[in-house]
Amino acid sequence: MTYCVGLMLNEGMVLLSDTRTNAGLDNISTYRKMFTFEDPGERVIVIMTAGSLSISQTTLARLREAIEDPDATPDTSIMLAPTLLKVADIVGGMLAAVRGEIDEKLSAMQGASCSMIVAGQRKGGAMRMFLIYPEGNYIEATEDAPFLQIGEHKYGKPILDRVVKPSTSLLDAQKAVLLSMDSTLRSNLSVGMPLDLCVIERDACRVTQKRRIEAGDEAFRAMSEAWSVALRDGFSRIKV
Amino acid sequence: MTYCVGLMLNEGMVLLSDTRTNAGLDNISTYRKMFTFEDPGERVIVIMTAGSLSISQTTLARLREAIEDPDATPDTSIMLAPTLLKVADIVGGMLAAVRGEIDEKLSAMQGASCSMIVAGQRKGGAMRMFLIYPEGNYIEATEDAPFLQIGEHKYGKPILDRVVKPSTSLLDAQKAVLLSMDSTLRSNLSVGMPLDLCVIERDACRVTQKRRIEAGDEAFRAMSEAWSVALRDGFSRIKV
Repeated sequence: MTYCVGLMLNEGMVLLSDTRTNAGLDNISTYRKMFTFEDPGERVIVIMTAGSLSISQTTLARLREAIEDPDATPDTSIMLAPTLLKVADIVGGMLAAVRGEIDEKLSAMQGASCSMIVAGQRKGGAMRMFLIYPEGNYIEATEDAPFLQIGEHKYGKPILDRVVKPSTSLLDAQKAVLLSMDSTLRSNLSVGMPLDLCVIERDACRVTQKRRIEAGDEAFRAMSEAWSVALRDGFSRIKV
Repeated sequence: MTYCVGLMLNEGMVLLSDTRTNAGLDNISTYRKMFTFEDPGERVIVIMTAGSLSISQTTLARLREAIEDPDATPDTSIMLAPTLLKVADIVGGMLAAVRGEIDEKLSAMQGASCSMIVAGQRKGGAMRMFLIYPEGNYIEATEDAPFLQIGEHKYGKPILDRVVKPSTSLLDAQKAVLLSMDSTLRSNLSVGMPLDLCVIERDACRVTQKRRIEAGDEAFRAMSEAWSVALRDGFSRIKV
């Protein structure tokens, strides 16, 4: 399983993904689930994936091929698409096409599926963030719903529901997604370190911060411990 | 959807269920999901249900019929069964049988299913708590896993993972299940008030406390609010 979360805030966007992939409990690997496409200052797009690795890898490979194709057009390349909405459209169409092909091969088995978060901004445009469903359709983050999640999303939702608002600072937002991930890591073994964290400041049109948090990361461990203490303290102070 | 949780602790057992049942978003009702079978001082059994109402109602009705049957035997009546393990066996068998019948009628549609938590103690025996799967098989709560959940269980798991141990007091346990439910209520509209709370003290072999918490309950609202404040305070004190 996977857990990926993206916040869209007034100051910018914060994205976090885990890296665990498994095909059965005895075949565990680390795969990047966060992919960055950047023309710094002009356009930045980050894609996070959850679900079948065969589908997400093929989809990402074809998106890259389309970008590098000398005949690329605004209808085929996410780096040329005139709007972020068009980017979501291209990614959704590619995802649905790949899923269709792979589903056909797997028809005897349970079908494979994959969902994605696509976030980005092009120069002169607004920041936008989309959740793309396995069928290729999508929904968008809004003021009222400033975060999107894919994969094993339920364990980490209560903390986001309580602390994330569009006015949340980028520093607090990083704390929120890391604590949301921490709750998920504790409750579900199939989500695992290391983590990929990415921050995109509003109107920078580039990745302003990118960090891989390894399993032994001291700051993450300290934050996780502090949160446990805060929860237990808060719990013990509440009267029934 | 539903959320039910049961804790098995050194001092006794604490059980909590919501009451919302829906068949589509415009057909919402309140149904009891917690059922008590009691021969005070001799035997107490509490059953909580999640899933298809048609299956859980029929299963409960048949369990009651079997108890009232003048020819009831220790193999058919949960009030005569010699052990709690046998109780879990009878409930599991009945659940699987009812599910089989209803599944047959629904074969054209998606099958219906239902899971249950069965908790209790008979005089001279130990407290035991089982989670019964739709297929009728079951697992048991242990020292290492002192709680069981059915239904929409993920939102409310992180708080339980962090604060519940076998040594937790019954008062703290009530607080823990109520806060676990509160997180679920906030994150999933299909779980709803009122709530049924039940406490069984060790070796009492009776329900020692039973409470329905209505939508406007002032104490629950205050606890929920205090928890939100504690979470936000804890969050703001943590350094990234």
